[in-house]
Amino acid sequence: MKTYLDCVPCLVRQALDSSRMLTDDETVWEQVVRETLRRAATMDFALPPPAMAQQIHRMIRTLVDDRDHYRSRKEEFNAFAMKLVPQARAWIKRSDDPLETALRLAIAGNVIDLGVKSRLDEEEIQGSVQRALSDRLDGDAGQFAEAVAAAADVLYLADNAGEIVFDRLLIEQIGPGRTTVVVRGAPTINDATMADAEMTGLTGAVEVIDNGSDAPGTILEDCSPEFRDRFERADLVLSKGQGNYETLSGVAGNIFFLLQAKCPLIARHLDCPVGAMVVRRAAAVPAEEASQVPRALGK
Amino acid sequence: MKTYLDCVPCLVRQALDSSRMLTDDETVWEQVVRETLRRAATMDFALPPPAMAQQIHRMIRTLVDDRDHYRSRKEEFNAFAMKLVPQARAWIKRSDDPLETALRLAIAGNVIDLGVKSRLDEEEIQGSVQRALSDRLDGDAGQFAEAVAAAADVLYLADNAGEIVFDRLLIEQIGPGRTTVVVRGAPTINDATMADAEMTGLTGAVEVIDNGSDAPGTILEDCSPEFRDRFERADLVLSKGQGNYETLSGVAGNIFFLLQAKCPLIARHLDCPVGAMVVRRAAAVPAEEASQVPRALGK
Repeated sequence: MKTYLDCVPCLVRQALDSSRMLTDDETVWEQVVRETLRRAATMDFALPPPAMAQQIHRMIRTLVDDRDHYRSRKEEFNAFAMKLVPQARAWIKRSDDPLETALRLAIAGNVIDLGVKSRLDEEEIQGSVQRALSDRLDGDAGQFAEAVAAAADVLYLADNAGEIVFDRLLIEQIGPGRTTVVVRGAPTINDATMADAEMTGLTGAVEVIDNGSDAPGTILEDCSPEFRDRFERADLVLSKGQGNYETLSGVAGNIFFLLQAKCPLIARHLDCPVGAMVVRRAAAVPAEEASQVPRALGK
Repeated sequence: MKTYLDCVPCLVRQALDSSRMLTDDETVWEQVVRETLRRAATMDFALPPPAMAQQIHRMIRTLVDDRDHYRSRKEEFNAFAMKLVPQARAWIKRSDDPLETALRLAIAGNVIDLGVKSRLDEEEIQGSVQRALSDRLDGDAGQFAEAVAAAADVLYLADNAGEIVFDRLLIEQIGPGRTTVVVRGAPTINDATMADAEMTGLTGAVEVIDNGSDAPGTILEDCSPEFRDRFERADLVLSKGQGNYETLSGVAGNIFFLLQAKCPLIARHLDCPVGAMVVRRAAAVPAEEASQVPRALGK
């Protein structure tokens, strides 16, 4: 997905929000905003928004001199999500369709996204999880189940910390033995890294690798050769969240996108309402050129 | 009021919205966004937001090659507001306090602001007018009445087209003989110019001058010497709307600010809720240095 003009003010706002979250130094906030504006003025809008976000967050890291600014927040989200696991496991266990229930919970976990919202309260996560059990799925859970049943080698692209706790529940249904989870290669915003996989016990339950990149998405050209090779060989790729969708929506392959469409532009690109719980096979994603951004969007 | 960091993404969004309203040429939209980013990267944040907006709208005018892009929309708003006049006059006539009722209606008219919102529907204006009769005023209408009674020479700084129709009703209560209305010196967004004063019959009812500037506010240094002289000599200045507030909030003088606080930063600066109908004497406006922008603002 390209960067739409509507994404630009949002990227500037996110840069400001991030700088405020990471430091109390107002001069740094101003530096971040000015530098974001300067870079955005010449950015290639054909690239997906996470390419710009990657640049912005690298720049913020150099200005606030810290390697993993969101570490404590990510730990907080992991810990909170883990508290919900016993209840979630009980729902899956007594469900008529445990795979679909686990799928719903994994998509619900995608509400944990600091790239979209600076604040997130626990009630919101709990509400999202609860609603996920009964809300309409935008996509075909049966088709998803068939694709999973047919795959010998599943690559599961994780998105955020906290969220990966719910991903684990879905992976338990898919089969940890044939699944490999992928986390980011280096910290960026609240995206899950190996530290989160370790903290939440994911590394003990399933193979976890990293993609070698610090983009908040999966920019294949920016990933390690090892990951790219793994991506090519996988029978089935499960791509979680908006950042992975934005960067992989134009990539050919047996890919399912699992996400909550939180941004109006992504919802438009997917032709679904904002807030929809999306389960889409890559082929069913509208082509880049078919998507029209409405004049009045976001007004 | 200075330009807060939170104003920056909003200015970019407004530039994009304006370009979309004025042309269907997507390459122009992109030019406007890139040029806005480039200028914003080096702008002086000590200046008020309308100083930047002035630059942006001059730039948009050069790109779309038209002198008064909002003319037809302004005429539409003028015409719509004029349809509401008989009802408004009836309310004023049967009111126990005609001056306060006219004041409320003039503030209600300030909802007509394309700088803040790209779309505005007639129901919203009607609703705003209706609510204005009973909603709490944020300020002291009695103090306002005293200031008006004591002034021999009132300078009334108009804001938007459409809105000036309601301003006229207030001026009729203040006394057209001692009032001079000021419009912008050249078109900018939907701000009222002499053409709007003529279309709505204001020029036949009261003296109308222009300020010699194309800023969507009153940047004194950018105004004509004639206007500045008039501003200095006035007993009482009535300043309508956000743009005039942003540019005059730090100026000494016997000024009353009449506006709807539509933006969260302006509401914060005025220490009032978003949406408040504000009547404030300049001295009661918090000093620039006293206002703190909250970390979580707008999130």
